[in-house]
Amino acid sequence: MAVYTEVSDEELEAFVAAYDIGEVTSCKGIAEGVENSNFLLQTTTGSYILTLYEKRVDPADLPFFLNLMDHLASRGLDCPTPLHGRDGVALRSLCGRPAVIVTFLTGLWPRRISVAHCTGLGGAMARMHAEGQSFPMTRPNSLGLWGWRPLFEKAADRADEVKPGLAVEIGAELDFLETQWPRDLPSGVIHADLFPDNVFFQGDTCSGLIDFYFACTDFLAYDVAVCLNAWCFEPTGEFNVTKASAMLSAYRKVRPMSEAEMAALPVLARGSAMRFLLTRLYDWLNTPAGAMVKRKDPLEYERKLRFHAGIRGVADYGITL
Amino acid sequence: MAVYTEVSDEELEAFVAAYDIGEVTSCKGIAEGVENSNFLLQTTTGSYILTLYEKRVDPADLPFFLNLMDHLASRGLDCPTPLHGRDGVALRSLCGRPAVIVTFLTGLWPRRISVAHCTGLGGAMARMHAEGQSFPMTRPNSLGLWGWRPLFEKAADRADEVKPGLAVEIGAELDFLETQWPRDLPSGVIHADLFPDNVFFQGDTCSGLIDFYFACTDFLAYDVAVCLNAWCFEPTGEFNVTKASAMLSAYRKVRPMSEAEMAALPVLARGSAMRFLLTRLYDWLNTPAGAMVKRKDPLEYERKLRFHAGIRGVADYGITL
Repeated sequence: MAVYTEVSDEELEAFVAAYDIGEVTSCKGIAEGVENSNFLLQTTTGSYILTLYEKRVDPADLPFFLNLMDHLASRGLDCPTPLHGRDGVALRSLCGRPAVIVTFLTGLWPRRISVAHCTGLGGAMARMHAEGQSFPMTRPNSLGLWGWRPLFEKAADRADEVKPGLAVEIGAELDFLETQWPRDLPSGVIHADLFPDNVFFQGDTCSGLIDFYFACTDFLAYDVAVCLNAWCFEPTGEFNVTKASAMLSAYRKVRPMSEAEMAALPVLARGSAMRFLLTRLYDWLNTPAGAMVKRKDPLEYERKLRFHAGIRGVADYGITL
Repeated sequence: MAVYTEVSDEELEAFVAAYDIGEVTSCKGIAEGVENSNFLLQTTTGSYILTLYEKRVDPADLPFFLNLMDHLASRGLDCPTPLHGRDGVALRSLCGRPAVIVTFLTGLWPRRISVAHCTGLGGAMARMHAEGQSFPMTRPNSLGLWGWRPLFEKAADRADEVKPGLAVEIGAELDFLETQWPRDLPSGVIHADLFPDNVFFQGDTCSGLIDFYFACTDFLAYDVAVCLNAWCFEPTGEFNVTKASAMLSAYRKVRPMSEAEMAALPVLARGSAMRFLLTRLYDWLNTPAGAMVKRKDPLEYERKLRFHAGIRGVADYGITL
């Protein structure tokens, strides 16, 4: 659940007056996302999204995120674009928080993933990777390989509360990942959080990507590995090779993957599973009982990790080298 | 926080196909309201509100609420109006819950109440009361005078956890209200929950009323008394007689109040304070610590009750008999 900051009507009207988007006719807090406060803003000129950045976003990162959205949109990608005020400024302040208004993206995020959704995702992700190659800014992935052990250390002593033996299992897996992690794969801007609620569709057609607030510079194939985990497992836990194959072939039609990238997918998928296992584990152990957020099960990602550790090769993802 | 039910894209599209409102382009859960799941639905023809009724609304009451909105809108009042499907049916089913689509009302609810807001509220409430006189259905006020003692009995043994002596104080006040409650005041349809988040404004002009799910048949002046409590106290606790006077005189310009109604306002205001004191007390004692709702302070209404019990007469509300 979101919306942490209550914006008064006077503050809102003063804020919107800095833009050339008409008068506010409605503004409703959106009950999606957990990192920021998001409002569906309607004015006499149309619909927009108003975002107030709460404490989990580092203000120093905002220029990277906003410029990235500008860059991708200018290349024809469907994603929210920050509006600039009459003074040219996009990143402003509202209720003491950094705030922006971005364009409204139509579409629904898929609650039940179909093969067609995986196809749409694959193509959209590949176009983002391709167009991101000319984006000049970089941002390290703070939740990448070298961020995992420090995060684990904050949760290690209590990990076995979630499952006996979990701390030992994670420690061994980190040893593996730190030695086996690939080097020299093609890098660039990745989204790093392409879960279904960040990908909009109209029917079977992908209408755009949102929520670039984990975007960073890393192996492009790592983004693909995140999506193998987020899109290609059934709610019952089974890996769906048809979905994986559909996503990967749609991706490769737009941006061919090298043999090295494809061969690295299993270890990248283990790493991606580790990333979400660790953040969920940390949140699970550190979310106060009364907090107004729904905790996500870390063990879902422990099971996904084990799946990737156990496969025979990328044929299990529906592709061949 | 709201949105209890997750609606899948397939279910939504099938549901909307029963109406003549075009194709769904967006649907976002709204983080307002606590009783139902509300979504801001956009289609190729415009904006709508999709409401799924959760367990706190009795399905048997829905025809009263929906017909009331239809009736008031047909009389020119600004309020959401239920859409009827191509088959003529307004009340349908979605995700196993009763569900409707209603028209979208522009405006913002005021976070900081001004005198002008109280004026706008007074006029809109009086128009609703006047037009409601010709509404043929009735619904008893289950949270009216005779509902309070049964509610108190469910919380009495733990009331002193909130404040020592509270149970005795409430018991004595209920004795007073049950003997001093007026009879034979003008009755009709009241909203019964006209808090600021249910009243929309564009600038200083009231653009409409929403959320008729406590509406019922009761003394019209009781609705006015609810608003004395909900709109005319400052956040610091003081009663603002300028706001009360503005609300009452705007109301009386549209619908004159009898001397008996005005004289009854203090006891009605005590009763209204009791109603919200009791429901908040019950919720306070029965909301699990991990629930995703923010509990409201019952003692705010104990203080309001004491204010009305202590006034010299309706002159303290800025009016004279």
